[in-house]
Amino acid sequence: MIVQQKHFRTIWFKSSSSDTVCIIDQRPLPHQFIIEEIATINEMIIAIKEMHLRGAGLIGAAAGYGMYLAVLEAEKEKAFDISLQSSAKKLIDSRPTAVNLIWAVNRQLQAISKVSSVDEKKTVARNMAITIADEDAAFCKSIGEHGVKIIEAISHKKQGDTVNILTHCNAGWLAFVDYGSATAPIYEAFKRGVKIHVWVDETRPRNQGASLTAWELLNAGVPHTIIADNTGGHLMQHGMVDMVIVGADRVTRAGDAANKIGTYLKALAAKDNGIPFYVALPSSTFDWKITDGVKEIPIEERDAEEVKYITGLCNNELKKVLITPLNSNASNFGFDVTPARLIRGFITERGVCEATEQSIVSLFPEKVAK
Amino acid sequence: MIVQQKHFRTIWFKSSSSDTVCIIDQRPLPHQFIIEEIATINEMIIAIKEMHLRGAGLIGAAAGYGMYLAVLEAEKEKAFDISLQSSAKKLIDSRPTAVNLIWAVNRQLQAISKVSSVDEKKTVARNMAITIADEDAAFCKSIGEHGVKIIEAISHKKQGDTVNILTHCNAGWLAFVDYGSATAPIYEAFKRGVKIHVWVDETRPRNQGASLTAWELLNAGVPHTIIADNTGGHLMQHGMVDMVIVGADRVTRAGDAANKIGTYLKALAAKDNGIPFYVALPSSTFDWKITDGVKEIPIEERDAEEVKYITGLCNNELKKVLITPLNSNASNFGFDVTPARLIRGFITERGVCEATEQSIVSLFPEKVAK
Repeated sequence: MIVQQKHFRTIWFKSSSSDTVCIIDQRPLPHQFIIEEIATINEMIIAIKEMHLRGAGLIGAAAGYGMYLAVLEAEKEKAFDISLQSSAKKLIDSRPTAVNLIWAVNRQLQAISKVSSVDEKKTVARNMAITIADEDAAFCKSIGEHGVKIIEAISHKKQGDTVNILTHCNAGWLAFVDYGSATAPIYEAFKRGVKIHVWVDETRPRNQGASLTAWELLNAGVPHTIIADNTGGHLMQHGMVDMVIVGADRVTRAGDAANKIGTYLKALAAKDNGIPFYVALPSSTFDWKITDGVKEIPIEERDAEEVKYITGLCNNELKKVLITPLNSNASNFGFDVTPARLIRGFITERGVCEATEQSIVSLFPEKVAK
Repeated sequence: MIVQQKHFRTIWFKSSSSDTVCIIDQRPLPHQFIIEEIATINEMIIAIKEMHLRGAGLIGAAAGYGMYLAVLEAEKEKAFDISLQSSAKKLIDSRPTAVNLIWAVNRQLQAISKVSSVDEKKTVARNMAITIADEDAAFCKSIGEHGVKIIEAISHKKQGDTVNILTHCNAGWLAFVDYGSATAPIYEAFKRGVKIHVWVDETRPRNQGASLTAWELLNAGVPHTIIADNTGGHLMQHGMVDMVIVGADRVTRAGDAANKIGTYLKALAAKDNGIPFYVALPSSTFDWKITDGVKEIPIEERDAEEVKYITGLCNNELKKVLITPLNSNASNFGFDVTPARLIRGFITERGVCEATEQSIVSLFPEKVAK
């Protein structure tokens, strides 16, 4: 994406000879654009855990780069394998709901295990980190090309009138390496000149919609309006939403989708009002081992402070303010699961399918249950 | 309710001989407890419009007191009736969704018109203001006594285990003159020693849940947990909510309920998970003239700044911070309508009924369509 006239991915090596990984610190956005340099596996784990970066694809890519840093760290230790396995475990534990994290760590472990010298392991891990990032960008680009057809069809049906798309959280460029998942069809439609408008759920408690998705859309010039998370049902009841596109953090083979807390509520409202609800995802987000999302996907509970305090801009300074009684308890579940029955379809890098195991597997025949 | 060891209503004359009306300024809550003195009808209109006070019952009571101030104002003008009608219109226009406002203004206008001298009008209006407030408190007390039976039944079914109640916005003591509507059964259950716990939706964008309901429950000692509005669906999917009780701003004779934006989403989730969803209201909140809530209830759009900025406590000072990109648009619909089909029942001052015209009218036979 273009920021300040320059093309950016969300994660990259500082230079082709550098071991320093650069990321965009998402915490001070939309108010400050800061590039953070990460030099060690522990810094990467902190960056993931404390959400300097977040989002399904980017967490996967960060795990890929993290495993390269883990190899560098293991090289300094006596027991290479123990050190590497320990880093891998810490990475996986840093965000329990994100399946891309496990997927990327395992992909790296497998690749690294195939060569024997530490120098080879370093080369393999570095290349794999770049491959995972490149694939992520390529998959998101494909998601955009498949998803845009749905938007174009609605635009056609509305005779060119504005297509109103609601999205929740940030499944945008910032959540991946480039393009985003839910936003990829939106950016592609905008590029093609389709008239669109995006309703951006602010997405409490961390406000990824208000601070990240809105910032992205503003930079890209896409018309958009920020709304409280409470608003989508009302808009749908009154014909102000033509489709919903969200991302996902983990999708079962039967099509149940874990995504940012509150997604399920929007899916219910879409169903109640006959509005198509799409989940856009690269196939790395599928968890092929599980079926029942509500029962089987662990839901991360984050710090209650994220509900009780919020950070914003006051006289050009970032201030953290208390927005509840100091002594009240708060709970902070990070995700919920939208059952497949509420989802019209999945937009993947291989095309669009329905939210049934049969339809999903028809796009990914290598995943047919044996 | 008891605040700082003293019993308070939410609106009262400063003394029995004073024309000054006292209210609790709800804007700096939960951080500061400030009593505001209101001496003119214009101050009352500002207090309603800018939400120094809010909530169905309290807006009605404030309109009652406001009409007394309007009589005092009209006394000073040449054309008494024109002045009074103008104040009445301004009051009604100050919050378009609140039916109690219109109801209280009309009740005052009718009472005032029955006497002819200005002195009599003053006496009638003053007495009517107090009557409306007293009735509101009495009705809420009755709502508590009827609603507590539902909580007790769930407690019995759970063999005394904690009853988890979710509520949205503030239909509490602060929204009425005393007790509240949605909170009245909760306070009554707590008083009777029933084990309860309340999930408090923070209720963006104005956070009436996080700042008012939580503050009330904390003062009253009722166990509670503040959650982002996105969270309720997940809790319901996992058996962590036994019932939902919300208030209402306007309910049609067929049982469609306008309440704070986001209520509809919780009702959908309750329905999807077989959890009883109750609306508690004094009968003044029924709009007997309309049937289809989604089509017929006007939904107030408030200032987008309420979405873009939030006020909280930072180093013991209230600070207003920007939480979106400065240049992004935002929309702020204040209410949504929950269709009757999603509502298990209404808890009124006369008892509990189902959300059908037949059942509602069986409690209010004087309202049978002629």
